[in-house]
Formats: sequence, structure tokens, C-alpha cells
Amino acid sequence: MENNIFLPEPTLRRLPWYLAYVEILKARNVEYVSSTQISRALNVDTSQIAKDLSFLSLKGKTRIGYEVDALVDTLSGFLGFSTTHKAFVFGAGSLGKALMQDSGLSIYGLEIIAGFDIDSSKIGTSVGEIPIYHIDTVAEVMQQSPATIGILTVPADCAQETADIAIGGGIKAIWNFTPYRVKVAEGIVMANTSIYAHLALIYNRLNASS
Amino acid sequence: MENNIFLPEPTLRRLPWYLAYVEILKARNVEYVSSTQISRALNVDTSQIAKDLSFLSLKGKTRIGYEVDALVDTLSGFLGFSTTHKAFVFGAGSLGKALMQDSGLSIYGLEIIAGFDIDSSKIGTSVGEIPIYHIDTVAEVMQQSPATIGILTVPADCAQETADIAIGGGIKAIWNFTPYRVKVAEGIVMANTSIYAHLALIYNRLNASS
Repeated sequence: MENNIFLPEPTLRRLPWYLAYVEILKARNVEYVSSTQISRALNVDTSQIAKDLSFLSLKGKTRIGYEVDALVDTLSGFLGFSTTHKAFVFGAGSLGKALMQDSGLSIYGLEIIAGFDIDSSKIGTSVGEIPIYHIDTVAEVMQQSPATIGILTVPADCAQETADIAIGGGIKAIWNFTPYRVKVAEGIVMANTSIYAHLALIYNRLNASS
Repeated sequence: MENNIFLPEPTLRRLPWYLAYVEILKARNVEYVSSTQISRALNVDTSQIAKDLSFLSLKGKTRIGYEVDALVDTLSGFLGFSTTHKAFVFGAGSLGKALMQDSGLSIYGLEIIAGFDIDSSKIGTSVGEIPIYHIDTVAEVMQQSPATIGILTVPADCAQETADIAIGGGIKAIWNFTPYRVKVAEGIVMANTSIYAHLALIYNRLNASS
């Protein structure tokens, strides 16, 4: 079951690690896993693991640990990966198209159902099965096939404007892949995937260590 | 000039925001920008901005602020975006191929020069201009065309093993896109782009607010 408890960000960062790890154990037909094992594999304190998993009302059994199958199902469901969430992509450039083609996202509950752009050569085409519409038609498309998540892959100089249009069209969450720091009204969910900041981090650490 | 000062992570997260913002101003032929303007646009304290920019030895002029052109060039150079950094992609699945096709990365100084996989149907093919090799040949390919960054887009269950092979082949930095928490030896740079954690965050916030 998808949860409706507001979870702390660090917990939301760690839970997918646990899931990835227990999925591997499941594939290897392992039946039980202790928090000590998870701790060693992922470098997370056992007390932290117990605390994180307590949000899911999951408790390990003394000496046996957690049941792997149950842990996979509960974690996946709890994180929302077993539920389909519909999304629009704003900006059908190289990154936008790349995400539309990334079938991996659907395994994590994300279904991209439409793309939007302003480039007339792209309007009316499709990426895989996903149609590209003009951004002016977002409210119309929303009526026909609603989505809650707007994935922002436009150039930085139209990131804010596009986010405003998306939200005006009914989008409830912005997943921002642009380097621009988009501002949204209260009540709108905002997540930044800062690819360029991660590149800057890598470059900096490579230079500082050499 | 690319820098060799070890920068704090929060600074490395904010500097690309400043760059994206001043690039927009540059495109609009704006000559000067004050830290107050940057602060308003990006919701960052002026004192924080001054502190972050002091790493670049950039000082604004009283009443005039920072010269936009100089700020763009200095930030871009300092962050390493004006230098070419070569990278291999490990895992030519949907996400790996997507990144190879994302021409946007080259604007930020990343040049993907080879992909690696274990699927024999992919070996010998190419994505755009980028050849796909068998992962067993990583050391050979490294000799011919060296790279420092390894982008990890394999399935979670072979993330650790693949990272080990990449590092064994000479890779100095791992950019991990898998949900698995990969461990690396000291001296190897590690950056995680936790797409799935961001999805979990979005789903959680959407449910918790509804």
C-alpha cells in the first residue's frame, strides 16, 4: 500500500537503497535478512535501519531478521513504486526524449503519457508511443488524459515560465532537471535532480584530489 | 580556469544555479547583476551568495554588482564546464543509451566516448557515434582512449561488481545512477544521482498533501 505519512527526506533517500538490496537477495532466493546484514552491505547504522523501517510498521524477528519477500513488497508498495503515477514531460529535447525512452522509470511507478514542446517540427510526432503536443494545449491534454507530475527538461531560460504553465494546466508536482532553480507556490511538490551540480561535484573532487 | 580547491557540497549545488541565472541575463544583454537580484531570483541569502562567489575570487562592485559576462565565464570555467572530461557509460540499457544521446551533457564539459555492456547483441554496435564494447575489454579501451569518469547505469544487482571492474580499469570517479549504494575505495570520487529516491520523494509528498 502506498503510504500517506510525510517522511523525512533522508529516510526517503535510504529506503530505495534497502529495496535495491533486498531485491537482489530475493533474486538469490534468500529468505531472511538481518539489519546487521543490511547495515554491512550499505554502510548504514542498524539503529537507523530499524528506525527507517519502523515507518512501514515492519519489525524484524529476533535472530531471524526480516522476511525478504515481505520486505520487497512492503517497501516497493510503501514508496509508491507499485502504483502508476502519470507524468508529462515538458521539453522534448535530448534529455526529455531520453526520459521518455527510459523504460526503467515504469518499474518505479512512473508512466510518461505525453510530451510538450514549442518547436513546431516536433509537435504531432511521438517518441516511442508518447505523443508530443504544443505546450499551449496542456490544459486540453490534461482533460483527456490527466497527469500529476510534470518533468521539466526545457532550457534553463524558460524553466520558470514552463513550470508556471504546467502548474496552471493542473500539474501538482514538478520534477526539475534544469539547472535553473524554479519557484513554485505552496502546495506544489518540487524535486530537483541536479545533474549539473553532480557533474560539478565530480569535477571538483577529481581536481582537488589530483 | 578549472579550480583545484575542495569546495563544500552545498556551494557546488548553488554555483550552477547562479550560472544558469546569469547565463539568462547574458542572453538578454544585461551587463551587471547585484547579489540582491540573484538573491531575489533564486531565494538564496545575499551573504551566502557573496560567500560562495568569494571562492572564485569574484567581488562585486559597490552599487554596480557583478559583471555578467565575467561571472558567466568565471563560473563556467571554475565549475569545470568549459573543460572536456571523458567518460565511459557502463550499462547500455535504456538509461545508459539515453545519457549517450543527451547532447546537453557536452555543454557541461562531459564527453561520453564509449559504452560497455555484457549483452552480446549490443557489443560492436554504437549509440550515435559512441561504440559499445564488452566490459571485459575496459582496460584495453582505456589504453586507446582514456576516460576518468564511469557512469553507472547497469541493473542494481551488478552495480557493485561493475563499479569494481570500472575502477580496476582505471576509472577515477563513479557517477552512480543505480538505486544500489555502491562502495568504493578511498581516493575514488563518488556521486549518486538518485532518480528513484527523487521519485519516492515526489510520490510521498503528493500523497501526504492530498
